[in-house]
Amino acid sequence: MKKIGIGLLGFGVVGQGVWKLIRKNQQEMMNSSGIQLEIQTIYVRDRKARGEWSAEDPVFTTRWQDLIENEDVEIVVELMGDVAMARECIHAALDAGKDVVTANKALLALHGAELTQKAERAGVQLRYEASVAGGIPVLQALRESLSANRIESIMGIVNGTTNYILTRMTQEKLNFEDVLQEAQEKGYAEADPTADVDGYDAAHKLTILASLGFRTSVQFQQVYREGIQGITPTDIEFADELGYRIKLLAIARENQGQIELRVHPTMIPHQHPLAAVQDVFNAVYVRGNAVGELMFYGQGAGDMPTASAVVGDVINAAGNLGRTDAPRYPLHIPGNGKQAQPMEETVSAYYVRLLVKDIPGVLGRIATTFGRCGVSLLSVIQKGETNPVSLVFVTHKTKEVALHQAIRDIQTVDELTAVASVIRVEDL
Amino acid sequence: MKKIGIGLLGFGVVGQGVWKLIRKNQQEMMNSSGIQLEIQTIYVRDRKARGEWSAEDPVFTTRWQDLIENEDVEIVVELMGDVAMARECIHAALDAGKDVVTANKALLALHGAELTQKAERAGVQLRYEASVAGGIPVLQALRESLSANRIESIMGIVNGTTNYILTRMTQEKLNFEDVLQEAQEKGYAEADPTADVDGYDAAHKLTILASLGFRTSVQFQQVYREGIQGITPTDIEFADELGYRIKLLAIARENQGQIELRVHPTMIPHQHPLAAVQDVFNAVYVRGNAVGELMFYGQGAGDMPTASAVVGDVINAAGNLGRTDAPRYPLHIPGNGKQAQPMEETVSAYYVRLLVKDIPGVLGRIATTFGRCGVSLLSVIQKGETNPVSLVFVTHKTKEVALHQAIRDIQTVDELTAVASVIRVEDL
Repeated sequence: MKKIGIGLLGFGVVGQGVWKLIRKNQQEMMNSSGIQLEIQTIYVRDRKARGEWSAEDPVFTTRWQDLIENEDVEIVVELMGDVAMARECIHAALDAGKDVVTANKALLALHGAELTQKAERAGVQLRYEASVAGGIPVLQALRESLSANRIESIMGIVNGTTNYILTRMTQEKLNFEDVLQEAQEKGYAEADPTADVDGYDAAHKLTILASLGFRTSVQFQQVYREGIQGITPTDIEFADELGYRIKLLAIARENQGQIELRVHPTMIPHQHPLAAVQDVFNAVYVRGNAVGELMFYGQGAGDMPTASAVVGDVINAAGNLGRTDAPRYPLHIPGNGKQAQPMEETVSAYYVRLLVKDIPGVLGRIATTFGRCGVSLLSVIQKGETNPVSLVFVTHKTKEVALHQAIRDIQTVDELTAVASVIRVEDL
Repeated sequence: MKKIGIGLLGFGVVGQGVWKLIRKNQQEMMNSSGIQLEIQTIYVRDRKARGEWSAEDPVFTTRWQDLIENEDVEIVVELMGDVAMARECIHAALDAGKDVVTANKALLALHGAELTQKAERAGVQLRYEASVAGGIPVLQALRESLSANRIESIMGIVNGTTNYILTRMTQEKLNFEDVLQEAQEKGYAEADPTADVDGYDAAHKLTILASLGFRTSVQFQQVYREGIQGITPTDIEFADELGYRIKLLAIARENQGQIELRVHPTMIPHQHPLAAVQDVFNAVYVRGNAVGELMFYGQGAGDMPTASAVVGDVINAAGNLGRTDAPRYPLHIPGNGKQAQPMEETVSAYYVRLLVKDIPGVLGRIATTFGRCGVSLLSVIQKGETNPVSLVFVTHKTKEVALHQAIRDIQTVDELTAVASVIRVEDL
């Protein structure tokens, strides 16, 4: 039996989950890995906040340096959630030769390259399975199990909050604002929902997925990002009629040495496995040049699913403790010439819903405008007797730049009341 | 750059896939793992069969001992497919201190305990990701990523042939025999389809999944097994009406220290993620006590998906070459008192379709019989004007032994023409 001392930085929802899980499954972990985890020190910002966890317990400290200085702490688990302080603490832990496990996706998306490089130079491990899709073990799969593949694309539903909102809007035909409020009441959305709703969280995760999957160093700033605030029940209904469901997808795809990186609401076919991912569930769909299509599905958040990934990392790190050639999860590889593809050069099909005055000839004028810009149409729906009326187009695949030109030209058509929505369509 | 010499035992569909994949993705593998794989020797049963692969190439041998004796072969990859000879070769490779990668599920289900135990004693690695669900990296997930969990249940669609047959029967309302013939013509089913259709292949895979997941040594002989030959379009149609789809599921579940192990056609709800797994695709659905529900989906067979898992194992083994504490995939753990649950004690809901003479009172007599045996009913369908008429019952959860008693008693009811089908229902 190998005893491994760990230190927790942070004792919020996930930190407490880790603490509970280590107590609950200790026997199983010992049986399967021969490792006994012992929490040596827990850093908390404020002792008083520790009510039921017996704040006076000597294991707690309000000085994070205590973890670094404690020689019995071999693995530091960072679960504080913010960026600046987490970065400082992890640097200190790596400098002290300790392995680090973190769930901090924003930190890794912004400073992952610098941190994994430092870990590599120091000959210690930095693992972060929980940072993407919570309990779903997709990073180990990308990095280890699929190492014989060239990854062609990664598409993920990696934000539970927005997936919950879109699921409820679809099932109940509700407005975005109403569902957001419900999600906030249920604790599925933050009081300030920006990080989720605007796609920042998904873009952080995509940065990590793409860096590992394409074995390059993706910059968070290169990820195109669009949130779900603009999605309406009307669009969801038209999507359904056209055979699609709307999901916030994080998409990374390699095209002739360039990598497209984008997070936006996307229509995907009803029968695609990703379309069946409901509520707060996450899924990551990967295409490899040998394995073909794979999908990983599960809970992307929550104390215990996240703790499952964190403690899994700790056990795997413990099994490799002291090895300078332990498996690496690098985010700093120069890129083998792989560059981010400029968004205007990406290719997609589009759903375009216009509000137009219901006058003879208007459909023809708009269709002609699409054609002049080189955008060819797959289908058109005009329905109802309202005035203005919704006119819905789905295009064939086209370059983003051509679609933008078409939209600009359509905006000059007299009968146009508004460009109500433009949503990308993936036929996968 | 670390050069690793490998030897292939067998050069059929998967062996050739491995050979192709190593050539095709060599650069990617070197970039991501720093390892260069070199095929040193390939054992073939018959040189002449090697047409396009240049049978005269000195890399080929018809003497498998050449691989074992070749000091440049550090990892032996067994892809012969049969059991007795594969067993002999792997024993010899382990004796020679070589790591072994295999895709041979029948071998592992029958002799895995003896082989993993020997590997452990010899301090070498025996890896077999490709043996279950082809390219889907579910074994590494169960063994490493999910090591912080107590696994509660594993349910898999792990046989592509039967899933293809059931999918086609469902979509096209065709008979089993017709679809089997079509599958044979397309190469999805063997000339002798017994291993697939009778559930042997799925039972082999379940033996491996359950041993790893529950960290015990499951005996293949303990797996209850029922094939899909008895499934009719009529049952598929009734299932659909009741909200279910029929899949051949491999189920392992821990109940108070006992493990139930069964492979049989199962009705699962339409909205369950497993119900959406179509054609030859595979999926494994895992429930862990921390992570909750997870599903792994992808291609369970085919040369390249299988090669993806084989070569992934080779790369991971290469990264741990010579380590006596490399990750282990043991199939020989005594079991911590976990025993297989006798089938008659397992609990399930059941779909029962009877053919009865359409006479007043018959429904009452049969319902009473169910009740007398302690089997309570969830729903009943009686439809149509045929004589005999189909009478369909779905029971609440009941012990297998009670259901059997009910069926025996129903067989004595005068109006009964036949017990047309009995299919288990999982509400998951």
